[in-house]
Amino acid sequence: MTTALHPREDTGLAGRLARSAAERTSGAGLRTSEVAAWLAERRAAHRFAVTRIPFADLEGWSFAPHTGNLRHRSGRFFTVEGLSAQVGEGPEGRWEQPIIRQPEVGILGILAKEFDGVLHFLMQAKMEPGNPNLLQLSPTVQATRSNYTKVHRGAAVKYVDHFTRPGRGRVLADVLQSEHGSWFLHKSNRNMLVETDEEVPADPDFVWLTLGQIGELLHADNLVNMDARTVLACTPVAFAERSAQLSDMMLLSWFTGERSRHETRMTSIALNEVTGWEQDPWSIRRPDGRYFEVVSVGVEAGSREVASWTQPMFEPTGRGVIAFVVQRFDGLPHLLAHARVEGGFLDTVEIGPTVQCVPDNHPLPGGAGRPPFLDLVLEAKPERVLYEAVHSEEGGRFLNAESHCLVVEPETPLGSELPPGYCWLTPGQLAALARHGHYVNVQARTLLSAMTTGAVAW
Amino acid sequence: MTTALHPREDTGLAGRLARSAAERTSGAGLRTSEVAAWLAERRAAHRFAVTRIPFADLEGWSFAPHTGNLRHRSGRFFTVEGLSAQVGEGPEGRWEQPIIRQPEVGILGILAKEFDGVLHFLMQAKMEPGNPNLLQLSPTVQATRSNYTKVHRGAAVKYVDHFTRPGRGRVLADVLQSEHGSWFLHKSNRNMLVETDEEVPADPDFVWLTLGQIGELLHADNLVNMDARTVLACTPVAFAERSAQLSDMMLLSWFTGERSRHETRMTSIALNEVTGWEQDPWSIRRPDGRYFEVVSVGVEAGSREVASWTQPMFEPTGRGVIAFVVQRFDGLPHLLAHARVEGGFLDTVEIGPTVQCVPDNHPLPGGAGRPPFLDLVLEAKPERVLYEAVHSEEGGRFLNAESHCLVVEPETPLGSELPPGYCWLTPGQLAALARHGHYVNVQARTLLSAMTTGAVAW
Repeated sequence: MTTALHPREDTGLAGRLARSAAERTSGAGLRTSEVAAWLAERRAAHRFAVTRIPFADLEGWSFAPHTGNLRHRSGRFFTVEGLSAQVGEGPEGRWEQPIIRQPEVGILGILAKEFDGVLHFLMQAKMEPGNPNLLQLSPTVQATRSNYTKVHRGAAVKYVDHFTRPGRGRVLADVLQSEHGSWFLHKSNRNMLVETDEEVPADPDFVWLTLGQIGELLHADNLVNMDARTVLACTPVAFAERSAQLSDMMLLSWFTGERSRHETRMTSIALNEVTGWEQDPWSIRRPDGRYFEVVSVGVEAGSREVASWTQPMFEPTGRGVIAFVVQRFDGLPHLLAHARVEGGFLDTVEIGPTVQCVPDNHPLPGGAGRPPFLDLVLEAKPERVLYEAVHSEEGGRFLNAESHCLVVEPETPLGSELPPGYCWLTPGQLAALARHGHYVNVQARTLLSAMTTGAVAW
Repeated sequence: MTTALHPREDTGLAGRLARSAAERTSGAGLRTSEVAAWLAERRAAHRFAVTRIPFADLEGWSFAPHTGNLRHRSGRFFTVEGLSAQVGEGPEGRWEQPIIRQPEVGILGILAKEFDGVLHFLMQAKMEPGNPNLLQLSPTVQATRSNYTKVHRGAAVKYVDHFTRPGRGRVLADVLQSEHGSWFLHKSNRNMLVETDEEVPADPDFVWLTLGQIGELLHADNLVNMDARTVLACTPVAFAERSAQLSDMMLLSWFTGERSRHETRMTSIALNEVTGWEQDPWSIRRPDGRYFEVVSVGVEAGSREVASWTQPMFEPTGRGVIAFVVQRFDGLPHLLAHARVEGGFLDTVEIGPTVQCVPDNHPLPGGAGRPPFLDLVLEAKPERVLYEAVHSEEGGRFLNAESHCLVVEPETPLGSELPPGYCWLTPGQLAALARHGHYVNVQARTLLSAMTTGAVAW
């Protein structure tokens, strides 16, 4: 029996991550300025084509006879079902919608390794049919259980053993995080950062980059994919904050209070029971054109595990806005967090950014029902924008789902009275919460990844 | 706008809690040795009677026409419904059972206050119909939302304002914790410790005790109730452990792996769809006599919010065993934790003790299906038992649900090969996880409360 104990905290890791974050222009692999061209080259090296198809042309997918649920004949992958939501007691908190059920937990894993004493991260040029430019910088491994257990009989997932065989590497982060609660029912993925000392075989679709290089690339639109961003958000970098508006305990108490005060009742229903939506041969959509459509695509790909397939996807009807409002207290930047109810969350609320919405779904600026702080964010002067880029949401399920991502410090500080459900926390507090699941939603994690990689100009 | 920041960690609190834990024989109120007599006196001061009644004698409760679900005509309190569970893929992971659905989040709150520089905790002598001795030491406030919003039109819940009005006191702990996952569907309660500087009016059913006094009282059988124990488990005491078998990150990774590897599908069904159970006028039970029965009681009480009522309860068919096996590595005690699937957990698994079962439900010692480590725990020599007491589970829902609670250090260390789903962690690591919800189940929290209060003889 081994009796060698481990220190509970790896005190050296924060320094090593800081060193990696400081390397922003070059590393052991490509220079930062070369990555976009390399992605374009990888894009050209493969044969990719995504086309919208009618539901009738889906292969292996069909609407179940009694429920109308859209599912694959293998019973795997995912299904499109219905959700009936009731938040609070009144009719204004009641809605129905299609939702994706995908109970299996996927792995989003980034492999890390030191080159010349600097941590690098193995990023993949990966095609996903929903991305506007198809191919983006992705985690080393991005695999559903169906992928890595070979349900669709494709090629093996490269490098997956580093994440599925415990003890092979050193785990730097490993946490189940929720995915989009408005589109997925109870979906979570395993976000992993694993460091290896082994020789890692090279592959033309992969590149080693420092944390700082990835941070620089997060300034580009549609370059670093969502799966990479959520893993990067879980990177245990150090934030030198000894104090905050709320102590860590007060913050946990605020969150517990938010989770307790919302009474939600989310009920799974059949897709054909969903009211307010209509189906035609090409889509399931709302007559008012809001939110999203359920559509289908055919995919031809050379670098994916299988060469061609068809699948349903969700396509939002407008571009989203994801933004944190920043304010300094005693000079220390704080983020305005929002405890959000989303229909697909496992547990009531998670912390989202200050603003998370699709502006087209809401009335005119200043009108009733306009999300709080949206206009403040959209009207910010350029010099008050600390971070800005357009990013895609998960390209394996969501088609052309782009979000305008912002970190904004308004000229005029907000008053001390915040609307219900909002509170100030520091980037370090947000990062500490993201060590655990069920706290920080995927949109807030996209913005957090810009902080853990040093992309936000504080 | 306030700009005064708080330190993120309250560095003085650990010392104050240690001082309170050191006071074990007396405090500002009763001496420890006087508490049992005081409880007996309070018991005599009220008029309590609990009687088993047939379902037909329930007032306001009835079986719904189509589902057979047992519910109250107000739509409040709780319902007894059915659960269909599928864990993994095989028939051995499949079962159905009655389960309690109570979506509202209750408050379990203990009020703290310094007397002569020592923290004391306001404990209540509270009657619950399911407790074998009816009246036990309880949190200051133990209230469902129905209680404190007065759905059953009783008296106001004493001291509840300290917990429902944020900012009135200083929050020492505040976390949503799961309740019994085998009996409750997705139930959680808000566990709160709040310190006040205000004058607190005295009440004959309440007493101020130090953490050490409560720890001493945890050696008595059926004296400190479950609701008090789970809040005490969340007390942020300091454990001086800088190292452990697994670093904190490795432990989180183990837990994430356990949560990921279990594929569970829990489906709510109607009570009259539950197979393997039968109903007669007095109970819903299994023909083989295993697990529990659904029964009804009539209650006469003088000190509860309403003077008399009837309600359904779950009555286990045998006494449970809840035990942690302890082993020292480099002299540092570690607990053998078990990642348990329970049908009512919101998220797959939580950390339970090494042993959690009702031995009567399982074959003879050494036989197949006997829970791992059960016989090791039951056969431990008295000098290897570091903690032992019989405690009741929640007396508001569970009738005569007693558990034999143990912390045992076997003479012969276990081998380094553990069964799947088990791992060693330190008491401090367990306590750190209990700052967050969804990690530590209620049975493990009972044993943890014996550690946070200094009741375990390390």
